[in-house]
Amino acid sequence: MEVMDHEKYMLEAIREARKGLSEGGIPIGAVLVKGGKIIGRGHNCRVQESSAVLHAEMDCLEDAGRLAAKDYAGCTLYSTLSPCDMCSGAVLLYKIPVVVIGENKSFKGPEAYLRRRGVKLVNLDSAECRKLMAGYIKEKPALWNEDVGE
Amino acid sequence: MEVMDHEKYMLEAIREARKGLSEGGIPIGAVLVKGGKIIGRGHNCRVQESSAVLHAEMDCLEDAGRLAAKDYAGCTLYSTLSPCDMCSGAVLLYKIPVVVIGENKSFKGPEAYLRRRGVKLVNLDSAECRKLMAGYIKEKPALWNEDVGE
Repeated sequence: MEVMDHEKYMLEAIREARKGLSEGGIPIGAVLVKGGKIIGRGHNCRVQESSAVLHAEMDCLEDAGRLAAKDYAGCTLYSTLSPCDMCSGAVLLYKIPVVVIGENKSFKGPEAYLRRRGVKLVNLDSAECRKLMAGYIKEKPALWNEDVGE
Repeated sequence: MEVMDHEKYMLEAIREARKGLSEGGIPIGAVLVKGGKIIGRGHNCRVQESSAVLHAEMDCLEDAGRLAAKDYAGCTLYSTLSPCDMCSGAVLLYKIPVVVIGENKSFKGPEAYLRRRGVKLVNLDSAECRKLMAGYIKEKPALWNEDVGE
């Protein structure tokens, strides 16, 4: 049941990633879920808003708006890709207890560090997420490198 | 000489913090310096833009715009306060080699972790920075707690 829920919300994160792609952006999406409800959604906006900070997870947290610590405590963050150092740091700042990731083959953030700091990580290893990223990285390596500081 | 430079740029970060305060915001400021030039500046925008992600350092990185890894490699980030997990994560993502902080008595981010990951940290322990934060935290503890996920 839990896995089915995770897949349901990951589909929404994938929908965000595809929206980003259709806008000419990097196809990474995220949703923030609390009590079975999506309370924030977003996608990478590097290209669209010329943004250095709006990775999918950050755009999603910004969309959810100002929340209290007790709200974040009941949240699960879904991202189509393993969160980078910045987005992992946001998870730690707000003490989001669970992060579900689409895949970590295209890119792997500081997952071990997140776990050491008490975050539960679930990797769905989604073929769809892998395909989205692999295609993009192959097509636009310079943009992708810029996005992960390489 | 280096210390004098650090103090000069920290004054600009303090100027940003005061600007934020005058707007009704949380008084934390930051500047990004490359080759002796300020290429980005910002302040905490939680109140002003109802933002969950625009801490001073993030607002400053956003102001600097999209940069390549080779640009960040020559940068120093100045912040009036020890960077939180999110902002420290942004420093790691973009491999900013040096972070100069105004103080870490009011709040201390993951400084040891940043050092382990190769970032050089300089703490100016500025009385002015401490006074700015101490006054604010005393006056608006709820807003401050929200900003650091407590």
